[in-house]
Amino acid sequence: MRIAIVGSGQLARMLALAGLPLGYQFSFLVDTGADTDTRCVDGLGDLVFLQPGMTADVLYEELGSPDVLTFEKEQCNIEPLRGLQELTRISPSFDAIACCQNRHGEKQLLQKLQIPSSPFVYATEPSVLQQAVEDLGTPLVVKSISEGYDGKNQWRINSADDLAAVPADMLARGVIAEQWIPFLAEASLVGARRSDGECVFYPLAENTHRQGILVKSVVPASENCQRMTDVAVDYLQRIMEELNYVGVMAMECFVCEDELLVNELAPRVHNSGHWSQDGALCSQFENHLRAITGLTLGATENLGFAGMVNILGPNSEPQELLSAQSTLHWYNKTIRPGRKQGHVNFLTESGDELQERMQTLSELLV
Amino acid sequence: MRIAIVGSGQLARMLALAGLPLGYQFSFLVDTGADTDTRCVDGLGDLVFLQPGMTADVLYEELGSPDVLTFEKEQCNIEPLRGLQELTRISPSFDAIACCQNRHGEKQLLQKLQIPSSPFVYATEPSVLQQAVEDLGTPLVVKSISEGYDGKNQWRINSADDLAAVPADMLARGVIAEQWIPFLAEASLVGARRSDGECVFYPLAENTHRQGILVKSVVPASENCQRMTDVAVDYLQRIMEELNYVGVMAMECFVCEDELLVNELAPRVHNSGHWSQDGALCSQFENHLRAITGLTLGATENLGFAGMVNILGPNSEPQELLSAQSTLHWYNKTIRPGRKQGHVNFLTESGDELQERMQTLSELLV
Repeated sequence: MRIAIVGSGQLARMLALAGLPLGYQFSFLVDTGADTDTRCVDGLGDLVFLQPGMTADVLYEELGSPDVLTFEKEQCNIEPLRGLQELTRISPSFDAIACCQNRHGEKQLLQKLQIPSSPFVYATEPSVLQQAVEDLGTPLVVKSISEGYDGKNQWRINSADDLAAVPADMLARGVIAEQWIPFLAEASLVGARRSDGECVFYPLAENTHRQGILVKSVVPASENCQRMTDVAVDYLQRIMEELNYVGVMAMECFVCEDELLVNELAPRVHNSGHWSQDGALCSQFENHLRAITGLTLGATENLGFAGMVNILGPNSEPQELLSAQSTLHWYNKTIRPGRKQGHVNFLTESGDELQERMQTLSELLV
Repeated sequence: MRIAIVGSGQLARMLALAGLPLGYQFSFLVDTGADTDTRCVDGLGDLVFLQPGMTADVLYEELGSPDVLTFEKEQCNIEPLRGLQELTRISPSFDAIACCQNRHGEKQLLQKLQIPSSPFVYATEPSVLQQAVEDLGTPLVVKSISEGYDGKNQWRINSADDLAAVPADMLARGVIAEQWIPFLAEASLVGARRSDGECVFYPLAENTHRQGILVKSVVPASENCQRMTDVAVDYLQRIMEELNYVGVMAMECFVCEDELLVNELAPRVHNSGHWSQDGALCSQFENHLRAITGLTLGATENLGFAGMVNILGPNSEPQELLSAQSTLHWYNKTIRPGRKQGHVNFLTESGDELQERMQTLSELLV
């Protein structure tokens, strides 16, 4: 079984590390943009560089005639890949990726399914954006409809004057102005779905962000979040069904007093599910591979109190900070300030021990 | 950090798969014998083939100037490697490997430490072997002092006539005649030790062999075995201290009514510890790497009812036999009848469920 992955970052790396024990082989379609860092996947499979004008037949052959093509990220140009769907399975589908590439598409999907998310206005012109400030009130957040992750291409707007910060070319390509939500907590749900509709869901993770970047996740989540579990599972299940989705999908949410608002969908394994590598029998990476290759999905229950702390640059390999209850997952990326370089997972027998150990590590990081 | 591993089989493969997330790099010193199957480690590091007359300097360079050299097996010719100890750390030491290469050396070590094992006679001549039959009684087992694993080079002797089955050249190189032990159960203990003496131990595993080959392990072991835990930990701790051992060591035992007899020592990760990949936070593979690189050793407690079933050839990749409670570890070796091709790990919430699921898989295998 050969699996081709679009992307060559840490998620591709961890997918391959989860799939090699299953006897799977991998090819990686390398992003040729500025952020290329193939060291993440070096040695774990064949690297293929997309060349302009490459036909689907040639690309399929270069990828080693994969049994299935999948994605480590939704931000990729799928047009040059379209022809591959005549030659191999694409999981999740190009349509699912396209939907989640675009914040407006996501919002429309949620509206169609009557799944609540924060009130928003879609704008491509300054006048519409100005009106949004009046209609939605401030503060609000303006987000580009694509190429936004880890807090990139987002602007907090406290008054109409702040709209000047939104680049004109970004606005022209489309932005979403969203009401600022005073949430109680941030939570995410990771699920996996097979082509026959079988689904599994991990427990809700409670997440903490700093400047738009996830810094830590904890499972089980606080009671505030956990009470929303059934609602969250219902939402994600309906979203995956609507998209006829195959693979792992993550849904980031705002937990409010009376409701759960869906903030973002990721058609892939997700940073907030990394705890599952050490905190569940079957990690999100393995379940993604099981889903797209038609295997029985693996157990998702947390095996204790599980947590994850991201290691951001310029911190380097913190092996010496490991304790008996933690494990390191290092990505081999060139170190840059603020860049996700790796993460540490924790598994403890009590919630207090988990918090204490995560806090201790956090204090040792830059 | 670069780690060189002597060997390129499934244990080397699983060591590398456990070490890549830690950011470690690997080189493999490939066995050039008939059983070479480098597909196990292909892509996971650099392959180095030992050439006759290679100097330690050249070998060290070919191995990529490793920070530490370790072993996936004790059956290797350490003489050509001796010079490496001037250039890098060797963990465990050559002396520890040499001791465990030789059944007689092992027996002498156990005698010195007053650790019980089955009564035995060391023989290099037919007359001594004949006398052993009289002194020890039958049945007994004759084992070559080296190159014996998975039941190879062992002969069960029911009467003096059966001694004819022992090849003369094997006898000339030395054999051990051991009293046949009517054990209640077979158990093994896996421990890890750092150079500063810090040790951790996994729970005792209860093992089942067929024709000398391990077919399954279960943790926790039955009460019959568990009552021997403290004794086993004491034995293995003293053995590791005596050898000034660094890394993971496994001790196979016979559980008898009134005592625990040590049957065999393995100065490496061991098949009976494979359950720890999915049944403990830190697997034996990761703890071996943590031990030899001086990191804090990881938690060894079982996270539920854990088990392992070996997949022997001609069975091929049994992905379709996976359940929600099991995971596959496939070695990518050429398939041969009776050869270990992979294993399936289980983790369940009850002992009954574990037994049932392991039994179901076993019945589906050839």
